[in-house]
Amino acid sequence: MIVYILGHVMTIVAALMVLPFIVGLIYREPECIWFLAVLLGAGLIGLALRSLKSEDTVFYLKEGCVATGLSWIIMSLIGALPFFLSGAIPNFVNALFETVSGFTTTGASVIDDVEALSHCMLFWRSFTHWIGGMGILVFLLAIISMTGGSQMNLMRAESPGPSVGKLVPKARHTAMILYMIYTALTVTMILILVLGGMPFFDSVCTAFGTAGTGGFGVKASSMADYAPFLQWVVTIFMILFGVNFNAYYLLLLKKFKQAFGMDEVRWYLGIILVAIAIIVLDLRKISASFGTNLRDAAFQVGSIITTTGFSTVNFDLWPSLSKTLLVVLMFIGACAGSTGGGIKVSRIVAVLKAGLNELHMYVHPKSVRKARLDGKALDESSMRSILVYFAFFIIIFAVSVIVVSLDGQDLITNFTAVAATINNIGPGLSLVGPIKNYDLFSDLSKFVLMFDMLAGRLELFPLVLLFYPETWKSLSGKVRK
Amino acid sequence: MIVYILGHVMTIVAALMVLPFIVGLIYREPECIWFLAVLLGAGLIGLALRSLKSEDTVFYLKEGCVATGLSWIIMSLIGALPFFLSGAIPNFVNALFETVSGFTTTGASVIDDVEALSHCMLFWRSFTHWIGGMGILVFLLAIISMTGGSQMNLMRAESPGPSVGKLVPKARHTAMILYMIYTALTVTMILILVLGGMPFFDSVCTAFGTAGTGGFGVKASSMADYAPFLQWVVTIFMILFGVNFNAYYLLLLKKFKQAFGMDEVRWYLGIILVAIAIIVLDLRKISASFGTNLRDAAFQVGSIITTTGFSTVNFDLWPSLSKTLLVVLMFIGACAGSTGGGIKVSRIVAVLKAGLNELHMYVHPKSVRKARLDGKALDESSMRSILVYFAFFIIIFAVSVIVVSLDGQDLITNFTAVAATINNIGPGLSLVGPIKNYDLFSDLSKFVLMFDMLAGRLELFPLVLLFYPETWKSLSGKVRK
Repeated sequence: MIVYILGHVMTIVAALMVLPFIVGLIYREPECIWFLAVLLGAGLIGLALRSLKSEDTVFYLKEGCVATGLSWIIMSLIGALPFFLSGAIPNFVNALFETVSGFTTTGASVIDDVEALSHCMLFWRSFTHWIGGMGILVFLLAIISMTGGSQMNLMRAESPGPSVGKLVPKARHTAMILYMIYTALTVTMILILVLGGMPFFDSVCTAFGTAGTGGFGVKASSMADYAPFLQWVVTIFMILFGVNFNAYYLLLLKKFKQAFGMDEVRWYLGIILVAIAIIVLDLRKISASFGTNLRDAAFQVGSIITTTGFSTVNFDLWPSLSKTLLVVLMFIGACAGSTGGGIKVSRIVAVLKAGLNELHMYVHPKSVRKARLDGKALDESSMRSILVYFAFFIIIFAVSVIVVSLDGQDLITNFTAVAATINNIGPGLSLVGPIKNYDLFSDLSKFVLMFDMLAGRLELFPLVLLFYPETWKSLSGKVRK
Repeated sequence: MIVYILGHVMTIVAALMVLPFIVGLIYREPECIWFLAVLLGAGLIGLALRSLKSEDTVFYLKEGCVATGLSWIIMSLIGALPFFLSGAIPNFVNALFETVSGFTTTGASVIDDVEALSHCMLFWRSFTHWIGGMGILVFLLAIISMTGGSQMNLMRAESPGPSVGKLVPKARHTAMILYMIYTALTVTMILILVLGGMPFFDSVCTAFGTAGTGGFGVKASSMADYAPFLQWVVTIFMILFGVNFNAYYLLLLKKFKQAFGMDEVRWYLGIILVAIAIIVLDLRKISASFGTNLRDAAFQVGSIITTTGFSTVNFDLWPSLSKTLLVVLMFIGACAGSTGGGIKVSRIVAVLKAGLNELHMYVHPKSVRKARLDGKALDESSMRSILVYFAFFIIIFAVSVIVVSLDGQDLITNFTAVAATINNIGPGLSLVGPIKNYDLFSDLSKFVLMFDMLAGRLELFPLVLLFYPETWKSLSGKVRK
């Protein structure tokens, strides 16, 4: 069954390569032939694997996680081939790093001069963000049918956030609705950008990067050279794509009160406003006018909290307070159920409420009060899963920083590099700041950071399971039976 | 009842000032008169407050926490007076910072030239570590009698670590046994140091700093100028004082198997050995011989993990890997039930085990297995309290770093200053590195760092409760009744 899913994933990735191939044809770029080659190769292998469909179609959460983890590794391997074969990124580890960074919507790059890439490569680079943003398995669910529970198990493994709300009873329909909202928002953004005067190619790539909250741009200066209007458009759409998609679905159903009443969304917007206000005040020390400061602050806050990673200024040069605030935002991340990364606002809020609840119980020992989120009580099992999430997060984080520090870079570089990859942001500070790139790391560190990106995107669990020996014992035991 | 406790605390602090006064008399230092003045003033007020004993002698956990928080603030205020009045530290905020740092066994200093202080001041500075290490309320418990439950509530609020093991049925006896072990170990250490050739005064102060895992020394170079033998003695005793004191009690009872079988102690020693091994390997890059590297690595690892904060080398100059490892150790901290600070090994191990347990349950969904620590199952309520601890820890940490960053220092300085104070270590990296001090911060930052030191020492909760408005409402409501 897992192999069957992997076959499907390979076919889809292959099919998606048609688009960069067409882009290459339009711009008459000879290297686009590599997309065709990979497309045919991966497509055929994928079709062959799909024919191996087993009769066992039931799918538990464990298999869902393993299938998801493997799918993401395979799609990264395939996605890296065009970069490598065409010589656009001659080192395979680098090509893989760039692709993992793309699919996980991190946006951390190893490329020194982005503008030297051809159009089809740039398009593929940004397109990986769009694919990874909503998740390829969610896409798969929208097009193939499976038993209900099995679908939810796949979806739960791939979706960002602590809990997946089923919008409608059938997981397949949920997946379709999510993709429709996603596509509609992306198309709207492209239209506004084009109307605002951005070239069409740039608009498409920028919208892909924004929708997936990825951050790969087509310019070496990221968004700094675009007009203020375009920067504001990107700011607003970044923040929109960081909102829990359930809110949009509720809006579609005209349930406005429920949509605007979502605790997580209100906290998310509140944090953004407070952070912008503080940074605008802090930036007074630096020259520029209030308008510019407001635009820069809003753009960078939106970019970091949604974990997109675009930039309009080199915030590594900002004063200490603003930089610290950005680092804190890196960890908070966007809403659950959005395309953004990070720890997620809902987890933060849940933990905050649990803390306050504990204080309340200390002061009034006899009262029984449960912490609530969106009206639902935070029960023991959801608290435990959050604790386990934090446990893995901290362990992966600490081990990664230690291994990366073997390269001998400074602490800020190592710390923010790991923070920027595990939270799927992209740029960090110091040597991995917004105008730098990740090429300085050794291959070992790059693999660690790739692991962090995948772990961050898949909410840790699926990837941790892949590296837990018992998983394989249990799976092979089943096959033998 | 809380006022009664505070009166007691004031009297005890006053009584303890007899010792530095005597030291001053021996060395014929005129400023020792200030100890006498504060002793008399605080002693009289304390005795007056004690006479206000109310009939209500029952004590809940809430009152225990509030009494503990207030006691620590009052003893810091009184303890700072001699420094301030004598002009040894002319700025009162600085004097308070130094005293809070002493009582909380942090060891972060604002004094530029330690060696310029007189003997009685140096003695008091180190003595605060010794008092704070085991806790003044534990001392109080050992000498006054209270109803059983009330005592445990006070003790639980002051003792480091997630759970206080009652060694014997009566809390009063537990407190006495703890102080006896503590005193015996301290006296042994002084003897060995003196036999090893350290001057008697230095030995006493060093032993106080080690026993409380504080870190104030009497030399500007901390421990760097003492003979290698003395450094090894300090290393071993630092590690010994970081062990859960229950282990010593079990040893006294000749329950060797139980003592050496304690999960937390084994993990603690394991982490220390692994860290030393890695750092010794890493230090090969720097000149020095294997023996020196081993001594330096062992000393610094012991000093940081037990949160003592002595140093024999300027580890800010160490290679990146070693520095990163030290930062990780800063957070791990010592064992629960020791005099050390940090998050505590047992919390880390509990979280690790919960994570592994979750993985196991994913792979074998039908098996029911509880994570265990020292044979006891980690139940929901202990998991929740750990989660809440982490929640407050992260929030206090993030807010502190943001406020401290207002001063405009670099990120490493701010981050490690907060880490070194909330974990009660002392020195951080960069501008607060082992050969620097904390005087560079503004008064606001110093107050934030003092809060962090107290919060870290009292395991967050008592101090958070003091700043939670409902606590005061609930307490005053009770008085009115």
